[in-house]
Amino acid sequence: MRIVVLAGGIGGARFLRGLKSAAPDADITVIGNTGDDIHLFGLKVCPDLDTVMYTLGGGIHEEQGWGRADESFAVKEELAAYGVGPDWFGLGDRDFATHIVRTQMIGAGYPLSAVTEALCARWQPGVRLLPMSDDRVETHVLIDDPEAGADGPARKAVHFQEYWVRLHASVPAHAIIPVGAEQAKPAPGVLEAIAEADVILFPPSNPVVSIGTILAVPGVREAVAEAGVPVIGLSPIVGDAPVRGMADKVLAAVGVESTAAAVARHYGSGLLDGWLVDTVDAGAVEQVEAAGIRCRAVPLMMTDVAATARMASEALALAEEVRA
Amino acid sequence: MRIVVLAGGIGGARFLRGLKSAAPDADITVIGNTGDDIHLFGLKVCPDLDTVMYTLGGGIHEEQGWGRADESFAVKEELAAYGVGPDWFGLGDRDFATHIVRTQMIGAGYPLSAVTEALCARWQPGVRLLPMSDDRVETHVLIDDPEAGADGPARKAVHFQEYWVRLHASVPAHAIIPVGAEQAKPAPGVLEAIAEADVILFPPSNPVVSIGTILAVPGVREAVAEAGVPVIGLSPIVGDAPVRGMADKVLAAVGVESTAAAVARHYGSGLLDGWLVDTVDAGAVEQVEAAGIRCRAVPLMMTDVAATARMASEALALAEEVRA
Repeated sequence: MRIVVLAGGIGGARFLRGLKSAAPDADITVIGNTGDDIHLFGLKVCPDLDTVMYTLGGGIHEEQGWGRADESFAVKEELAAYGVGPDWFGLGDRDFATHIVRTQMIGAGYPLSAVTEALCARWQPGVRLLPMSDDRVETHVLIDDPEAGADGPARKAVHFQEYWVRLHASVPAHAIIPVGAEQAKPAPGVLEAIAEADVILFPPSNPVVSIGTILAVPGVREAVAEAGVPVIGLSPIVGDAPVRGMADKVLAAVGVESTAAAVARHYGSGLLDGWLVDTVDAGAVEQVEAAGIRCRAVPLMMTDVAATARMASEALALAEEVRA
Repeated sequence: MRIVVLAGGIGGARFLRGLKSAAPDADITVIGNTGDDIHLFGLKVCPDLDTVMYTLGGGIHEEQGWGRADESFAVKEELAAYGVGPDWFGLGDRDFATHIVRTQMIGAGYPLSAVTEALCARWQPGVRLLPMSDDRVETHVLIDDPEAGADGPARKAVHFQEYWVRLHASVPAHAIIPVGAEQAKPAPGVLEAIAEADVILFPPSNPVVSIGTILAVPGVREAVAEAGVPVIGLSPIVGDAPVRGMADKVLAAVGVESTAAAVARHYGSGLLDGWLVDTVDAGAVEQVEAAGIRCRAVPLMMTDVAATARMASEALALAEEVRA
């Protein structure tokens, strides 16, 4: 069975671990979000790709969900001693090595997809990990500008990481702008994997800045919609709140309520065939099905690999139901 | 008193620490060798500038003489795990931060001299540290090519660091080539500092690949020769062997014997006014003076800062003798 998964960072990575456990013989291609990539200290950092790679490769900091296990912070300390920022993005020494290798390869002319493949040769994640695009796409967030003068612009766009990590999404987001997405091309293999998939999954990743950004790469949304195979999603919203992260903040920016049903409708029946909501949101099943999307209520808390594997099995079961 | 010092790495840095102790009120400008700079992992590494900066700024690994104290090697371990080399150049985590800052600033358009000044703003070395040039000069060493076929070239040029660090200077060096030196310009401030100096010192640095490379930057040798102030050197050769390092190997490549007298004659009376040899080489004094260079035999082992300060005092005393 060929499974394509559109994945963001922590939620996507943890879901994938469950999926691998639930479908050990499946051929899994992950299309990873690169919209939250950022250049720090002259190095190219790809947080979502790395989270997937480290999680599936056994190198992740388990409790934190991102970054490396057994991490040290000598480089970061030194950069601070030089007065070189930003200081709000926590890069550890082991993690730095990944960014150094990536930046060196990109400088030598390799596209991000080839670099990702080279990094995965070490990590052996057990899936084929593709960036959504080799082109630079950078998610920016439009926020109020606290420093705006009377004559200045009242709003400014900041990098997603600045909004998310530095500001903790604590200020209103007026718009989410995937800068460069319109000009981006899907990375080699992305459209082919979607066209050849038996099932396509949207894990409980952020529907706006993770899966939404992947779908914003021209050709990807169309390929998913026209693949002719079941497309099944899992709600990242449980009981009207994100399971983790601050998805409600960016959902508000695109005018979507933070409910399991609203997120399903946001994707729409043109894209989604099936949707899993948590058992606490069982009341949403009817609304989702009214929107033309088959829906089931099952436990959606990724408390451990076994629980996550059960979620993945439910998603695959729903896919079979859709197919039949 | 304005003192200009042409310095390589460990020997130059340790001498400078003694000089600062001997002449605490002097205005010291260091013209640092950049011929052994190397790009590693996409980062620009300046071993000699950093050794001076770390030594005078209190961050050096004392026993080793280069690199940082309290160093860790997580980045290096990870690079090895990725299979990314070279593995023979020992960069620690704290050291990596320096190269990351430097590379980022150079990428942003700053010349090496401005970058060095910015790094020194943290380290406060107590001297003005200038790279010999903002232009790229890279010392290569011509060696026998062990992989040469019958029809291939029998010799090949390798980067100085490969010869020095990877090969431990264990193969014959047929020539030392400062690639790019002919096109290089002295960095801003270099010629001015030489012209305004009261005394110019050659510490016991490598006469070929450290001081020789600095002098190979067009205009520097002429400026030193024409400064009209005492130019005093300290022999890096004691008892016919280098005090440290493998200077004899590269001296052989330029046809100079490994003796204190031969090195003085290599610089020549057109450049040098005074030369200090170690007391074990007292027999060389007469030969050096016969070459038109005033010479004294004094202890030249930099066993600690006090001993090194005495060497610096002897050099300054010889300068006064020359001047008088």
